[in-house]
Amino acid sequence: MPSPPRKLAIATGGGDCPGLNAVIRAVVLRAHAAGIEVLGVEDGLNGLLEGTGATVRALTPIEVAPILGRGGTVLGTTNRCSPFAWRDGKAPPRDRGDELLARAQALGIDVLINVGGDGSQAISLELARRGMTVIGVPKTIDNDLDATVETFGFGTAVQVVTDALDRLRTTAESHDRTMILEVMGRHAGWIALHSGIAGGADVILIPELPYSPVHVARDLMRTLGAGRHFALVVVAEGCACVGGEVSHKAVASGGIGPSSILGGAGQRVAEEIAAVVPELELRVTALGHIQRGGTPTAYDRLLASRLGVEAVEAALRGERSVLVSSQPPDIKTVPLELAVKKMRAVDPRGQLVAHARGLGISFGDA
Amino acid sequence: MPSPPRKLAIATGGGDCPGLNAVIRAVVLRAHAAGIEVLGVEDGLNGLLEGTGATVRALTPIEVAPILGRGGTVLGTTNRCSPFAWRDGKAPPRDRGDELLARAQALGIDVLINVGGDGSQAISLELARRGMTVIGVPKTIDNDLDATVETFGFGTAVQVVTDALDRLRTTAESHDRTMILEVMGRHAGWIALHSGIAGGADVILIPELPYSPVHVARDLMRTLGAGRHFALVVVAEGCACVGGEVSHKAVASGGIGPSSILGGAGQRVAEEIAAVVPELELRVTALGHIQRGGTPTAYDRLLASRLGVEAVEAALRGERSVLVSSQPPDIKTVPLELAVKKMRAVDPRGQLVAHARGLGISFGDA
Amino acid sequence: MPSPPRKLAIATGGGDCPGLNAVIRAVVLRAHAAGIEVLGVEDGLNGLLEGTGATVRALTPIEVAPILGRGGTVLGTTNRCSPFAWRDGKAPPRDRGDELLARAQALGIDVLINVGGDGSQAISLELARRGMTVIGVPKTIDNDLDATVETFGFGTAVQVVTDALDRLRTTAESHDRTMILEVMGRHAGWIALHSGIAGGADVILIPELPYSPVHVARDLMRTLGAGRHFALVVVAEGCACVGGEVSHKAVASGGIGPSSILGGAGQRVAEEIAAVVPELELRVTALGHIQRGGTPTAYDRLLASRLGVEAVEAALRGERSVLVSSQPPDIKTVPLELAVKKMRAVDPRGQLVAHARGLGISFGDA
Amino acid sequence: MPSPPRKLAIATGGGDCPGLNAVIRAVVLRAHAAGIEVLGVEDGLNGLLEGTGATVRALTPIEVAPILGRGGTVLGTTNRCSPFAWRDGKAPPRDRGDELLARAQALGIDVLINVGGDGSQAISLELARRGMTVIGVPKTIDNDLDATVETFGFGTAVQVVTDALDRLRTTAESHDRTMILEVMGRHAGWIALHSGIAGGADVILIPELPYSPVHVARDLMRTLGAGRHFALVVVAEGCACVGGEVSHKAVASGGIGPSSILGGAGQRVAEEIAAVVPELELRVTALGHIQRGGTPTAYDRLLASRLGVEAVEAALRGERSVLVSSQPPDIKTVPLELAVKKMRAVDPRGQLVAHARGLGISFGDA
Repeated sequence: MPSPPRKLAIATGGGDCPGLNAVIRAVVLRAHAAGIEVLGVEDGLNGLLEGTGATVRALTPIEVAPILGRGGTVLGTTNRCSPFAWRDGKAPPRDRGDELLARAQALGIDVLINVGGDGSQAISLELARRGMTVIGVPKTIDNDLDATVETFGFGTAVQVVTDALDRLRTTAESHDRTMILEVMGRHAGWIALHSGIAGGADVILIPELPYSPVHVARDLMRTLGAGRHFALVVVAEGCACVGGEVSHKAVASGGIGPSSILGGAGQRVAEEIAAVVPELELRVTALGHIQRGGTPTAYDRLLASRLGVEAVEAALRGERSVLVSSQPPDIKTVPLELAVKKMRAVDPRGQLVAHARGLGISFGDA
Repeated sequence: MPSPPRKLAIATGGGDCPGLNAVIRAVVLRAHAAGIEVLGVEDGLNGLLEGTGATVRALTPIEVAPILGRGGTVLGTTNRCSPFAWRDGKAPPRDRGDELLARAQALGIDVLINVGGDGSQAISLELARRGMTVIGVPKTIDNDLDATVETFGFGTAVQVVTDALDRLRTTAESHDRTMILEVMGRHAGWIALHSGIAGGADVILIPELPYSPVHVARDLMRTLGAGRHFALVVVAEGCACVGGEVSHKAVASGGIGPSSILGGAGQRVAEEIAAVVPELELRVTALGHIQRGGTPTAYDRLLASRLGVEAVEAALRGERSVLVSSQPPDIKTVPLELAVKKMRAVDPRGQLVAHARGLGISFGDA
Repeated sequence: MPSPPRKLAIATGGGDCPGLNAVIRAVVLRAHAAGIEVLGVEDGLNGLLEGTGATVRALTPIEVAPILGRGGTVLGTTNRCSPFAWRDGKAPPRDRGDELLARAQALGIDVLINVGGDGSQAISLELARRGMTVIGVPKTIDNDLDATVETFGFGTAVQVVTDALDRLRTTAESHDRTMILEVMGRHAGWIALHSGIAGGADVILIPELPYSPVHVARDLMRTLGAGRHFALVVVAEGCACVGGEVSHKAVASGGIGPSSILGGAGQRVAEEIAAVVPELELRVTALGHIQRGGTPTAYDRLLASRLGVEAVEAALRGERSVLVSSQPPDIKTVPLELAVKKMRAVDPRGQLVAHARGLGISFGDA
Repeated sequence: MPSPPRKLAIATGGGDCPGLNAVIRAVVLRAHAAGIEVLGVEDGLNGLLEGTGATVRALTPIEVAPILGRGGTVLGTTNRCSPFAWRDGKAPPRDRGDELLARAQALGIDVLINVGGDGSQAISLELARRGMTVIGVPKTIDNDLDATVETFGFGTAVQVVTDALDRLRTTAESHDRTMILEVMGRHAGWIALHSGIAGGADVILIPELPYSPVHVARDLMRTLGAGRHFALVVVAEGCACVGGEVSHKAVASGGIGPSSILGGAGQRVAEEIAAVVPELELRVTALGHIQRGGTPTAYDRLLASRLGVEAVEAALRGERSVLVSSQPPDIKTVPLELAVKKMRAVDPRGQLVAHARGLGISFGDA
């Protein structure tokens, strides 16, 4: 039995994701019950590099109690930097990893709980290699991490998109229109697929299943011929034509930029369909950032809280260099390496896609 | 006392608007209680011109009972046509007004209840001039009709935008960003103004108050300097630069088209600000059609229901060529002419704008 | 022109009401822009009587910026005490009004902004009579104050009840049941009436319209005979039988107590109906406290913000002993006396009730 | 390979549960794509016993398309009867099972898809034993069926309760109160446990963990002493004192009756706590039926849709006497016997309860 840690630090990195505050709260509550102090690090790990009182501060149970249902992160987050020099030579210009470890040691930090996506966990891994005890908490709103069955924030995004589809449906129906909704998903179509099924979409276009505009148009006409006079199309921002380019013009990681508004996937798909069936009344909406902020669903609050508690439990058990991972009905830990190894994509031949097809949903793929 | 009508027809025209079904339901319930039959006319007044069983059908209380909270309109709606030849020479090629009146007479319709915006009410007025008894129900999601203090659907749109601002806020806060949200409002800034105040915006740009990008940038920097590190900007699609063009590139009437996504007001404002302060992290979202569909708020359901009942009451009182109008706490009737006369714009020197300024909100105007 | 105040205090009294924080925020933002300091007083005026640093504290714009959409009040609230000895001899035992004034003077408070219902405004009035400059902000979730056309929080309560009716409806429909929903409203039926219309109720029972159980049962059977197989009944907690007692057993002011669960109006009405038509499948739900907490609607946030700004404007204009009052489309001020004079009840012969009847809603009154 | 079925029937039994319509829709869409006709049976299996055109009717894709997001069931549901004579001798007086089979045969029904809880699946099983091909779809809002990892409707109930906790919290906080919320869960505490964690409860009382009022009071006082001045308590209706009786007075299965309002578990717990610490300000709310109706969450819509599709897939594969079962990430089939064998209770020593304790939540058990 290792001696228990006396001081944890927690940081949140990458894009906003509903449930981040629930993780922070859970870590603080669980740690304090075990007599462990928690330092909150501002702005990803930047706050630790700066190392001032303003950027690393003690978090108390009273302070975090009310943040369970709040969107965002009280610690701030960033995807602009890494303490290591590996990232495309841009920023930062030099390796500050050892500096970071020294700061952590100076502050008496025994364990770092690092909440973030594959980018953040690559940093966790490198810090662990240099000797730090790091426990990762997976975070990806796209739900595309292979090391965990599910991630918090994803369910909230799916709910927001489904609510939007409910609203679009009534307008589509009243006006005999085809509504195209562009949603998040550069590399994986989980949000489009889940919300498309939940929202009653007729067509869903995802990166994993390249589509043909001709097939999309044909399936839309088939829908519109079968007694229906309107249709809903959900388009993941990273969907791609058969044999064509991925629609997504490589955007620096870290969020939906203005460029996704100008000529995003939704707009492009609209133009492609219009080229085949010009008579269709098409309208495009791109939900953008409202998919990744705001209060988390009950499901995401529970999941995030459990991940946070289990991260501290892992620290108490003396684990190091692990990722907490949802393996329903339990939360387990897996080697941190898994977090950066493999993306979880939608299986085009899997049951979920088959079920969608069973509901009459077209992927425009054949 | 006039002899009461025996048969009403009801039609809904123009863009989708939460509450349309509540009006239809109220008309049917009130009319049936008075022993009056109600015909529902499909697709604006087109259904009457077609005049088939499929496009004009009896509506029963049992059928309309469950539609109170449903978005859209069970009658369908359109803004593509007028029975008269006045509209820009395009469609329809000939005046079919008398044909429409003949159809109505053949069907035994005593009163037409026409739910729609200024375009629809202009048709109501012309039909009334040719002898039909028409009662208008005002509909404009932008709340910009001078003949009524408020219109249904508007409150729902404001709520949807405010919910979106709540979600954007947490991401803005976590990432130290300035979020720009483009909302409906080509000619009037009511939605932007109400939701901007309710959602805690820092800057609101509306058509009635031409802005200067330099002032917007200055006020943003002031906000960001005063202890805040993020900002929210709400932009009405019709907002305009001082001395500049209205941002809105004339789009065919009838809704937010794909073009509003490509280079809409939000995107343009982002570029204008970026030209002044390139260091700001700006992100743009355009809510588009999710603002005008879906289930209405309780407020809009009540308002729409009351307008529908009062339209039938007016018919029972023998009124003709009137518009039902919300004059809180009552619903009254005003001459139909008023519906097409004057738009209600935000008063730049009015108390609502003053209150917004009192909350520290900038209009970028000075 | 009076010299402007240099220091305001703000207190919130009485029951929770969505929008309280929006008022506080607006007061602080507007005051600071005018160079006026704002002190927040904890727990109604108790905090001022205590007068410690913990119970009276400066409020800053940065601190209040995020509370716009949060339910509750950051100042705490109470309905357990008055500084004066008038209240039923119970508490407090002695008049502490002059003590309160002395404290306020010692703290340099020029103006007190007192947010609360008729009880709180009676205190405001007495303080004003003893020389304090007091500006009242009306607060009653029941919307039953004659001095203002509408109050914040009410719309949120109506939305919560309407959402509940939407949920109850599907169960009623699936099970052929009659669902009874008990809502707030001891003396006025506004919440029951607005939400009942918005939620499609078949029967609404309010204090202003004494009902007969026989008539309620008859109207339910009529509804159930006319092709419908379920029904919704909304019951204000203060509704009363014709010739009978008010259902509400006098509960100490300040909220729905356990007693409202045990044998509240909903349960009693269910038993009364069951006595007439035992074969009806009746189910009762009492919404209780979820009606008066939580995030305010966009409408209530706007209204509350405007009232808060206008309270400071009134102070700047040198007004004293006034109540800010919503007189759409403006916020005005009226003498504080009006706040305690007259309750605004539903007019049984007014248009709103007539409209409800026009929708086929029964009040069980004839 | 068996010859595929030509005609399916679908029935929904037991209490209302968000997602029932999504199952019906999915069955109809999938079956029609395979050329199979679907008959909808009204009111559980009663409609089949009646066997009139009004109670058994063909369901078409056009008809079911819009019901995905609607609460309730378009088929009606009941828990008042079984075709067999086994149930407590009350109703029905005689075994009508063979009659039901004869009716089904006469109507050409090849497969019955029976959506319901353990009661309904016991009927499924008996029908299967008598030779009918039956495929069960599990339904229990309490999520307490061992044969499936999760059931639709449960997540919606958890969200509704969590939303209620969010509202109660602000009032508790403003008034320094302890709020008690009674939720569904006669035999299993899943709803209380999930929503209690998601809503930030301080105490959760569930049937699986008998509590002591003294411990509840002690833990509440500990919470209130640790810098907090309010508390939230979630109480499952079936929670029980250590050594005491289950609070739930045996109510006939099938819903929360008026009796749960009068002296339900919430009220009893309030009285028990008050007996120990009379100075606490306690308030009780019983959510009742709003937990089990209304529009399903996105999650439940997806789950219900997948179960419906897979039920038809099972029929196409020639399976009989099976239950579709969620085994994330897939939907599988298990023997129908499993549906009636074992309830799934919360494991008092399981990880979920441990995580709740890790968050500082008390179960009042020690």
